[in-house]
Amino acid sequence: MQDKLTLMIPGPTPVPETVLKSLGQHPIGHRSTEFQAIVSKTSEQLQWLHQTKHDVLTITGSGTAAMEAGIINTLSKGDKVLCGSNGKFGERWVKVAKAYEIDVEVIKANWGEALDPEAFRRALEADKNKQIQAVIITHSETSTGVLNDLETISQYVHAHGKAIIIADCVTSLGACNVPMDKWGLDVIASGSQKGYMMPPGLSFVALSQRAWELQKKSNLPKFYLDLNPYKKTAEKNSNPFTPAVNLYFALESALEIMQAEGLEAIYARHARHSKAAQTGMQAMGMPVFSAKGCGSPAITAVAPKNIDAEQLRKAVKEKYDILLAGGQDHLKGKVFRIGHLGFVNDRDILTAIAAIEATLYSLDLLESKMGAGVEAASVVLNEKN
Amino acid sequence: MQDKLTLMIPGPTPVPETVLKSLGQHPIGHRSTEFQAIVSKTSEQLQWLHQTKHDVLTITGSGTAAMEAGIINTLSKGDKVLCGSNGKFGERWVKVAKAYEIDVEVIKANWGEALDPEAFRRALEADKNKQIQAVIITHSETSTGVLNDLETISQYVHAHGKAIIIADCVTSLGACNVPMDKWGLDVIASGSQKGYMMPPGLSFVALSQRAWELQKKSNLPKFYLDLNPYKKTAEKNSNPFTPAVNLYFALESALEIMQAEGLEAIYARHARHSKAAQTGMQAMGMPVFSAKGCGSPAITAVAPKNIDAEQLRKAVKEKYDILLAGGQDHLKGKVFRIGHLGFVNDRDILTAIAAIEATLYSLDLLESKMGAGVEAASVVLNEKN
Repeated sequence: MQDKLTLMIPGPTPVPETVLKSLGQHPIGHRSTEFQAIVSKTSEQLQWLHQTKHDVLTITGSGTAAMEAGIINTLSKGDKVLCGSNGKFGERWVKVAKAYEIDVEVIKANWGEALDPEAFRRALEADKNKQIQAVIITHSETSTGVLNDLETISQYVHAHGKAIIIADCVTSLGACNVPMDKWGLDVIASGSQKGYMMPPGLSFVALSQRAWELQKKSNLPKFYLDLNPYKKTAEKNSNPFTPAVNLYFALESALEIMQAEGLEAIYARHARHSKAAQTGMQAMGMPVFSAKGCGSPAITAVAPKNIDAEQLRKAVKEKYDILLAGGQDHLKGKVFRIGHLGFVNDRDILTAIAAIEATLYSLDLLESKMGAGVEAASVVLNEKN
Repeated sequence: MQDKLTLMIPGPTPVPETVLKSLGQHPIGHRSTEFQAIVSKTSEQLQWLHQTKHDVLTITGSGTAAMEAGIINTLSKGDKVLCGSNGKFGERWVKVAKAYEIDVEVIKANWGEALDPEAFRRALEADKNKQIQAVIITHSETSTGVLNDLETISQYVHAHGKAIIIADCVTSLGACNVPMDKWGLDVIASGSQKGYMMPPGLSFVALSQRAWELQKKSNLPKFYLDLNPYKKTAEKNSNPFTPAVNLYFALESALEIMQAEGLEAIYARHARHSKAAQTGMQAMGMPVFSAKGCGSPAITAVAPKNIDAEQLRKAVKEKYDILLAGGQDHLKGKVFRIGHLGFVNDRDILTAIAAIEATLYSLDLLESKMGAGVEAASVVLNEKN
């Protein structure tokens, strides 16, 4: 039905009306004092979200642009890095590093399983000559709905003494606790269409002092993604290139809403929704794709047995105007993914479970008693935190 | 006065309400058939605007990102290029090329003067061993309000036989005639906050067949700005990375408005406004900064004698809520710039002239008879095309 679509994909995520109204204002000059005030405010808001005292720089581009910027500003040609890979995005960062002739050792886990922190510990401890310059980790692997143990891996990286840790927090920031300074994360990249509750088009990258030291030595060619002019202009609340001014309006507005809710409440909401989605799916006999205990707070991937995931996904969209995400690469047709990231309330989760259950029922594919999914989800949603 | 600002800077330019309403809609999934339909439609609209049969690719980023993409996708390390430089943006493309270790020969003109096409002819004819791989030209130099003779320089490039021509058309496309295929332009880059009448955040790059042949051989490292995946996904009306979905809504809407007006009418309007702005300024004793006959259709730079350009600019903003642009780099304080690009009508031009004239009058700085500027501009605005 026209204008009735509900997005339950891991991005773009739903956007509050307040944020859309901010977005749709007339643009202003990006070198004006009025815009500098917005840059100043959003910079502080971003530091709040990242739990950091370091500058969080805003790039007009996708999350990939921010992640590439993080990699190519801190590393140099021939540098050795460890890159975790247990899904599409882990694979992407391997490709980025190789495109710049960085020497990549890939530490893999099966899609659906979490990266093993011990594998990183062993590789880092074995590196007696301190050849490893960085470890690249995808915190929440969007393609599989798996949350990797970034905190533990970061501890091992710091024990190494030389390597920095570069983290793709695109679908974890604003969904679960990612305290940049406390965990000693050296580079964090994220994108606006995720936990930020705003449309795509802005991405964010923050560097620690250690990372800025490496940036001075980095010899990889770049211009639009060279973070040095971003840092210099950020000091004057400005940007090196014309930024997406209207998306800044939306950013300010969205972060105000997030600040009013508070970080702890945001994380609790995402944890509750993740558990409700997983529990609801399992109650209707639909296996969760991520291994036990490592489900992402942002996305639940489901791998139905004997059911074409794409057929189910399309039926839910057609009948109930809820857009679920499909599987990516070799998971296409085998999994569907429920996004519960950003501007999502308990009603949205209950609705998604009910719509999936009703669709399976109507297709004569429901293996459990009708209502078991909604019942299980509602119990979780009503648990005290 | 709140919400009363009129932008007369060369970007962001004013945006029609219709376009802002499109922008402020709820985002949709970027892998959905609904979004594919928008990509398909905007691709055709962009081909119309570029007067080309080649794909026009859309990048989430600023005009600089598109221009960098054009340069680093067609060239390789050590390639020799000629780069025209007669303003801030010409200088920028020299920096981009050098950042990637491209061998740049700079052909300069003074700021305010046009590049001399003969200098390019001579350099290209002297290149008997066909070492020159590309010529990089800024069509409309935004910093000085100068239009370079891209058509003639392109002819000389084609006579060379090997070199391609890469054109920054950021403030010329949608302001004056830039027929990509007819002029044999190999790379055109542009940005959304200019003639497109929409907010910043999208940029566009189109490559000729010759440019795509070079792309296959290009060895410069890139990932987010690698145009190959953009081309491949464009064939399926999609994007390699999450694009700024809401800006696509605005793009479709803005290009519909432009198509309803028609290219010839758009060009005539910009030519009329450029002439009216120049004539009006001169009538009040304010020298136009660009040399005679090479004024940009998008921006008129003015170099007032014995008047602080910044003081005037600030007074016009404070009293009349019209934002003019200041001078860049060494021109700061020496020139101000009137943007007349995109969604600008005759009333806007008359108003800008009147506001500048009234401000000079109130500051006791007007050297001509009060009303001379408005009179001269109105005569031009009433000329038959």
